[in-house]
Amino acid sequence: MPQTRLDTDRIRAARRVIDPVFLDSPLYRCDALEPELGCAVSIKLETANPVRSFKGRGTELIAAGLGAGSVVCASAGNLGQALAWSGRKRGLDVTVVASRAAPAAKLDRIRALGARLELVDGDFDAARERASDIARRDGIRLVEDSLDVETCEGAATIGLEIARQAPSAEVVLIALGGGAMATGIGHVLTELAPGVEVVCVQPAGAPAMTLSYRERRVVTTESTNTIADGVAGRCPIPEVLDDLLQVADDAVLVEEDSIVAGVRMLFEHAGLVVEPSGALGVAALLENRERFADRRVVTVVCGGNVDPAAHRCWVAPRPT
Amino acid sequence: MPQTRLDTDRIRAARRVIDPVFLDSPLYRCDALEPELGCAVSIKLETANPVRSFKGRGTELIAAGLGAGSVVCASAGNLGQALAWSGRKRGLDVTVVASRAAPAAKLDRIRALGARLELVDGDFDAARERASDIARRDGIRLVEDSLDVETCEGAATIGLEIARQAPSAEVVLIALGGGAMATGIGHVLTELAPGVEVVCVQPAGAPAMTLSYRERRVVTTESTNTIADGVAGRCPIPEVLDDLLQVADDAVLVEEDSIVAGVRMLFEHAGLVVEPSGALGVAALLENRERFADRRVVTVVCGGNVDPAAHRCWVAPRPT
Repeated sequence: MPQTRLDTDRIRAARRVIDPVFLDSPLYRCDALEPELGCAVSIKLETANPVRSFKGRGTELIAAGLGAGSVVCASAGNLGQALAWSGRKRGLDVTVVASRAAPAAKLDRIRALGARLELVDGDFDAARERASDIARRDGIRLVEDSLDVETCEGAATIGLEIARQAPSAEVVLIALGGGAMATGIGHVLTELAPGVEVVCVQPAGAPAMTLSYRERRVVTTESTNTIADGVAGRCPIPEVLDDLLQVADDAVLVEEDSIVAGVRMLFEHAGLVVEPSGALGVAALLENRERFADRRVVTVVCGGNVDPAAHRCWVAPRPT
Repeated sequence: MPQTRLDTDRIRAARRVIDPVFLDSPLYRCDALEPELGCAVSIKLETANPVRSFKGRGTELIAAGLGAGSVVCASAGNLGQALAWSGRKRGLDVTVVASRAAPAAKLDRIRALGARLELVDGDFDAARERASDIARRDGIRLVEDSLDVETCEGAATIGLEIARQAPSAEVVLIALGGGAMATGIGHVLTELAPGVEVVCVQPAGAPAMTLSYRERRVVTTESTNTIADGVAGRCPIPEVLDDLLQVADDAVLVEEDSIVAGVRMLFEHAGLVVEPSGALGVAALLENRERFADRRVVTVVCGGNVDPAAHRCWVAPRPT
């Protein structure tokens, strides 16, 4: 049994707290992708809910635990939407700090859901610092994605569902950013389905957690350069890395071109609008055909918040 | 209680036969659509499954009932995919007859799922005649969408889910073609949630069933002219009309421009790729703002099989 910060009984109990609208998301085999990918691909779809990403699973736990009052988080865009949604439902006062460079669609939705939005120059890690300052100044709860165990437990409920919905899966591909989803799903699968290979996927343009995983120590990077805004961090959290080292079988990096190809394939062959972070698994399949050939793979399509104009550009017909 | 050909206990029992991959599809409130639509909109999403439409619910019942052998159906494209999927799973020999004018994406998927595909000149009703000829010639089961009660019972399981997932719904919008979905969902809601208004939506360019509903007798049309290929029939089935008259509160027609606007809004604000038939409910909301203002509406997004090039065109930015 993995000795992480997580506990499978607590994760099972979390299902009773999370709004059902986020639970039991579709998992289905998507034949139409298979000729191009060369393996049996199933999609675990986390975009068909009110915030179009898996993050609501975690924010439901946080908001339910708080009961009342104020809360602040830094967000690349999805956590902020989810916390705004869960907070609005319970009358919480929610502040989200995000980078001015985050997709306008994500920022607009955070505002529309009634949260106070504060924008910072710089990237996600700059937003983390600012959120931390606000929490200290106002004496309110700071939600730290991946560090706060609720964010991992929420994501981990996806693992319970995969174990039930796809009992014959051989590989599960999980987008790797801060690590909440990878450690959460990884914990559950390591315990309940130990034969399943848990493979994390990160953009080569934002490789900090993967480098840290490979070197077994925190490695930070100076900058990030990827369209996968949802996973673009520079500063891995030590506690999360410790957990990841126990539950992930591998972490791979993928190129930007592959991520765009993944977004396009999921649109053309699966009829799905996904954000780049949601296409990381497909990108990994495209770059590692031999490794995954003929295997039964589940890829978690973790988010679908895109600027429509950017998506149109990614899925535009390729020049011939 | 409605005296239709359907029975709610049989519909409940159908849930045990249908592959779970088609059941319990997401239903969620989609705030992002509301500023433009002016009411509380929830989406019942029938596109996140292996055939990207609700039709698998019915074909599962048909294929399970057949056990073995051969089967033929006419299809606008979605029933054929679903029957091919359910038949492949059980080793059935499936023939699908479709119009040469059906979307290439639908025809390609029918072939890819292992069915024999026969194309006819003419429209869906020409395909119905040809499928009937094949069934007679070969002495095999003819599946007739909306007439065969399994297709209605399968669709009706959506009604059970809406009653459970959206107990406070005031209006349910259902695409109207042959009538399986409208009579199925309508039957269940009339019995289990009699206060809910069941509103069918059909393109003005393919109005036969709506005209029949209004005149309370079968009205056929000479031709159809709509991008909503999934619901473009000319010849309503008397038995289905009889059922519809008992369970639908209204049937409305929508213009092509509204259908395109619906496809675009569902892409831009909800991140969903839908076929025109799946956007009929949104089109009805756009055309009837006062009628639905501030009400709690569920719209069934019933299919997502589109040619990517056509979809790109529908969602392209509007000229200003």
